[in-house]
Amino acid sequence: MTSNQRNSALSEALFNPARVALIGVSSNPKKNTARPLRFSRQHGCEVVLYPINHSQSEVLGEQAWSSVNTCPTPVDHAFVMVSSDLIMGQLEACAQAGVKVVTVYSDGFGEAGPEGQQKQNELLAKARELGLRVIGPNSIGLANLQTGLIMSVNAVFEAPDLIAGSVSLVSQSGSMMGSLLSRAAARGLGFAKTISVGNESDVSVGEIVDVLVDDDSTKVILLFLETIRDAPCLASALARARAAGKPVIAYKLGRSEQGDALAQSHTGALAGNDKAVDAFLKAHGVLRVRQLETLFEIIPLATTYRRPIVSGNRSVRVAVITTTGGGAATVVDNLGLESVEAVAPPQSFIDHMQARGLNLRPVPVMDLTLAGTSEQYQDLLEQLLECDWCDAVLSVVGSSAQFHPELAVKPITRARKSEQKPLVVFLAPEALASLQVLQQAGIAAFRTPESCAQALALFFEPPHQPPPERKSVVWPVGLPSKGTLSEYQSGQVFASLGVKLAPQMLVQHADEVTLDYPVVAKISSADILHKTEVNGVKVGLADANALANAMTEIANSVREFKPNAKLDGYLVQTMQPKLIELLLGYRRDPLVGPTVLLGAGGVAAELMPDVSIRLAPVTLEQAWQMIEEVTVTQVVRGYRNLPRGDCQALAQTIVAFSQLACYDEPSISEAEINPLFVQNDGVVAVDGLVSLVES
Amino acid sequence: MTSNQRNSALSEALFNPARVALIGVSSNPKKNTARPLRFSRQHGCEVVLYPINHSQSEVLGEQAWSSVNTCPTPVDHAFVMVSSDLIMGQLEACAQAGVKVVTVYSDGFGEAGPEGQQKQNELLAKARELGLRVIGPNSIGLANLQTGLIMSVNAVFEAPDLIAGSVSLVSQSGSMMGSLLSRAAARGLGFAKTISVGNESDVSVGEIVDVLVDDDSTKVILLFLETIRDAPCLASALARARAAGKPVIAYKLGRSEQGDALAQSHTGALAGNDKAVDAFLKAHGVLRVRQLETLFEIIPLATTYRRPIVSGNRSVRVAVITTTGGGAATVVDNLGLESVEAVAPPQSFIDHMQARGLNLRPVPVMDLTLAGTSEQYQDLLEQLLECDWCDAVLSVVGSSAQFHPELAVKPITRARKSEQKPLVVFLAPEALASLQVLQQAGIAAFRTPESCAQALALFFEPPHQPPPERKSVVWPVGLPSKGTLSEYQSGQVFASLGVKLAPQMLVQHADEVTLDYPVVAKISSADILHKTEVNGVKVGLADANALANAMTEIANSVREFKPNAKLDGYLVQTMQPKLIELLLGYRRDPLVGPTVLLGAGGVAAELMPDVSIRLAPVTLEQAWQMIEEVTVTQVVRGYRNLPRGDCQALAQTIVAFSQLACYDEPSISEAEINPLFVQNDGVVAVDGLVSLVES
Repeated sequence: MTSNQRNSALSEALFNPARVALIGVSSNPKKNTARPLRFSRQHGCEVVLYPINHSQSEVLGEQAWSSVNTCPTPVDHAFVMVSSDLIMGQLEACAQAGVKVVTVYSDGFGEAGPEGQQKQNELLAKARELGLRVIGPNSIGLANLQTGLIMSVNAVFEAPDLIAGSVSLVSQSGSMMGSLLSRAAARGLGFAKTISVGNESDVSVGEIVDVLVDDDSTKVILLFLETIRDAPCLASALARARAAGKPVIAYKLGRSEQGDALAQSHTGALAGNDKAVDAFLKAHGVLRVRQLETLFEIIPLATTYRRPIVSGNRSVRVAVITTTGGGAATVVDNLGLESVEAVAPPQSFIDHMQARGLNLRPVPVMDLTLAGTSEQYQDLLEQLLECDWCDAVLSVVGSSAQFHPELAVKPITRARKSEQKPLVVFLAPEALASLQVLQQAGIAAFRTPESCAQALALFFEPPHQPPPERKSVVWPVGLPSKGTLSEYQSGQVFASLGVKLAPQMLVQHADEVTLDYPVVAKISSADILHKTEVNGVKVGLADANALANAMTEIANSVREFKPNAKLDGYLVQTMQPKLIELLLGYRRDPLVGPTVLLGAGGVAAELMPDVSIRLAPVTLEQAWQMIEEVTVTQVVRGYRNLPRGDCQALAQTIVAFSQLACYDEPSISEAEINPLFVQNDGVVAVDGLVSLVES
Repeated sequence: MTSNQRNSALSEALFNPARVALIGVSSNPKKNTARPLRFSRQHGCEVVLYPINHSQSEVLGEQAWSSVNTCPTPVDHAFVMVSSDLIMGQLEACAQAGVKVVTVYSDGFGEAGPEGQQKQNELLAKARELGLRVIGPNSIGLANLQTGLIMSVNAVFEAPDLIAGSVSLVSQSGSMMGSLLSRAAARGLGFAKTISVGNESDVSVGEIVDVLVDDDSTKVILLFLETIRDAPCLASALARARAAGKPVIAYKLGRSEQGDALAQSHTGALAGNDKAVDAFLKAHGVLRVRQLETLFEIIPLATTYRRPIVSGNRSVRVAVITTTGGGAATVVDNLGLESVEAVAPPQSFIDHMQARGLNLRPVPVMDLTLAGTSEQYQDLLEQLLECDWCDAVLSVVGSSAQFHPELAVKPITRARKSEQKPLVVFLAPEALASLQVLQQAGIAAFRTPESCAQALALFFEPPHQPPPERKSVVWPVGLPSKGTLSEYQSGQVFASLGVKLAPQMLVQHADEVTLDYPVVAKISSADILHKTEVNGVKVGLADANALANAMTEIANSVREFKPNAKLDGYLVQTMQPKLIELLLGYRRDPLVGPTVLLGAGGVAAELMPDVSIRLAPVTLEQAWQMIEEVTVTQVVRGYRNLPRGDCQALAQTIVAFSQLACYDEPSISEAEINPLFVQNDGVVAVDGLVSLVES
């Protein structure tokens, strides 16, 4: 079965089943397990629901069945709320009843330690055997707000009025599905489908995104992520979402190491590198927000406008119009932290508006407190949305938003919009009603200046390209295919990909050396990873004599520190000049796969990381972006009167190095060139290491 | 009149006048200028109000007077809403009526350009002549929520119910006074006094803070700042606030250069350095928040608990208890970004709780979703507040907060509190009612995970000490007292304060030199600030011969590039080893006065600033804190196997250098030691400059 076939089967039964069984539904309306039936009825669910209760023939005033396989018609989707011990029997009954998808609320599985994991494995094996797809276990369920079908115990559906809309939410946290829904609903945001994936034992976030791409009622997809469990599947679903023009917006935990560690312990996931996850999400076009409420506040921005490409050399320019100078300043200050420029109107525009009866000053915030009428405000907005000197328009509304919602935001909702130029609004006072009016009008409106500024900056962030197609590369003949390679062997790998090495020879005696002096000599042995710790490196050797002496010293020292090391000889290199030193790293990230890192070299850089990460392999264009993202490279890109480095060669080296991702066999787990010297006419690898995945 | 006398006169008339004149009040209830009377009546104002209207004898159903000096009794405070041209006459009338404070709403003064500034100067001169104190002009006014006196046109007072409380707000933005009030009021936060200072022509923020320190009804002072106009006055008021145990919390615009520039253009203020402002606020005990809503959300934390001192070597430990794992994770992730540790309970505590009937796991988030009753939740909270393995307790509440406010937060409000250990709450869903319940119970409750984490981190930030008393230092004899000093002269200044210089001599000829070689030679001239640009520096000179040749080359080059420079000779220094290079800077900040900066040296550090700033002079303890705040110093403080630098000498050097603030004459505008080399047995200044304030 191909992924698409599987998904089309999944698709209908998941969110649009014709008949649903609620297995283990309670007759006590106060119990959690009574909620799915109660909530579905409360919200006018039109899907056929079969309450299943092994001991009662009536539940909450409805007829109940003793088992799913005694229901009068076949069932598409079962929501299972029985204790974990009883699951296996229910799976059998589900299969008999024609069920395609089982959503398991029951807990005590993978999230509960090794024993639970064993149970989960058994559940999954059984489901596969029976041809059932599984959501969860430990899933708080899902809802289709358009049909009123609530297969969930989440208290958020207690709300008297749920708004149907075009936003769908996939959450790895059950409780946060409810919290996000409640926050968004308070703003008047309507949802299509919402789901909490629980332990993701079978159906993953990626598969659900894939289903939602094909769901006509879903226009935008929100993700609340703790980890990434199936990167390839998610990647292909995201590619389809991008092609379908459905924005995907994510809040992903783990920006701090502490948060990442918590997500691991909470979900049993592996430790990934958050910067790698970030690179993955960006590469696949996901807008990753940093603040929780930005997740839904940014929606009108993401859905109404195509993400623009502001060329790299100028900052994003925002025109700011306000009735509260102080309120506007809170956003502008935050925009400054994001390198988005609040731009003053040029004289031509001031003249233009003066002819229309409005006086503006050439300052970055156009304050209309005293000047304007509502009509003038609207006219200014329209003129700004049409002008060519700004990329977005920000309106900051003051106290009128609190007491006269319709009046305050009328010029904004009325203004003739531009499809090219985003319009966003921050309301300075407490003004929920005005936020709702704007939301209804499809205008991005923000509760806090921080969220407003970050959303605007995020929207204008240059989108990453997807990683290029991976073309197989052949492993150099004669090199080991497991373990960690010596520096010399690692250099051969890098050289085979097109990385320039410092001129070097592997020798046994000084007189074999035909390199230019001065040189550096290093012990070469796969058994010695930290050469300086055994005094195995001597630098600045001016001639053959000095080299011979150094080799003797190294030999004595190594014999003392590592008597059993198998030695290959001495790696001798011509010493290299440098403008700056960088490091290139490669890592197969446990969550998102091959990644390449460019960073500043040296001790200080360990303390203040200055790095750029991408999925590997990278294109030349991506390599250039990486160079621009590493601050220290500015030193060789035309800083003051300092000499320029060969960044073209650097970009080519990054591309070559990133091909480490392209071996079919062996698979590289980690690799590093450190240092990589940037010179005025090239870049050169001075030291490096390659570690292979143990098969 | 001393500051205190002036303030006691100001104090009563400012917020607690017995009789108030509203000058220029409109009889049209829809006009802004009708608002103070309308709002005061609406909120039951008991102060005697005299509406003043030059053409009508009745305004809004009340008797009006034609001028303030025709009122039947003397007036304490006048709120003036007439056009700026009519102000001067009103001041005369106010003086005749016994007015002590005039709050001027009228605009068109300093905020409106040079002509307006001239008008403002005249207004101020007149007020001084008449013995009147002035709030504003361009002030939206003030309010005393306890007496219902609303001398303000701000729309926020339209609200039907204003809550009186113990929070006072001083804002440099009129509209933000209203916006903050409305946001805080929605959370049930009550205010004592609120004021917008307008152009601050006379009464400054500092004086108002001083008044509020003496106001019994004010327990905490909030500041919304665009700039700092009178640092010495504010500093002394903040010192009194600290002594009185009244926390001061500030939101200050200008964290980004763009925000700072905007505040300048908006307020006519000078450009300060935000890091200097930050140092000023910290030195005086102010909690500066980064997010707008943290300004009031942090209040219960700041008022209920003494700010603790967590010793420098361990992180702050927070115990996290929740019913929503995902919700808790959003805060914990953000705490990680702030270096605050979510700490797992130790086994002894797990045993302790097990004996009380609750099972916990040794993970950093204690999730009670399934385990606990409300009583167990409360018991766990109380045990955590009493235990010795955490510094604060964070409770994250899930969906119950939305539908059952009282129930959800009952265990939290009921729990027996500790005066030592802070308790804070984040509510994951939309749950305004629960936020209000917590606010009423005096518990810090947060709407967003970002604000919650930042508030907690800010509260635990090691408080800075106030700057030490400044003791006069005498300017070295024989040095110029204006202009920019040469490197050699600058060195003499530094040396006189106790800074160690690289061994050096100012010579005319190489044979005068008695220093150890190798040396560096530099041209010495007050006319040549950028020595390398005239090829005026030669390094690595091995002996007297090399030095003589270098001096000739320098002479030829300087003659070519700067033929008219007055030359003092050659500064010759013994070359110095270094472990790391730093820079020490001194600047008289236009807003907050003398500051000292320690930063990483070199080109890369210009691109990625790594600095610490304090008000100058500093104590030895403050100097140590500065060293710890500069990341690169870790390299010489025991990093891996790298040699340690002499940080004791570094701290002493910072203290000595910061004495640049202590000259009565001349006054230093800027100074720099760059580079400052840290060695294993000392630190040494290699180059530097001193610029004096032109008198």
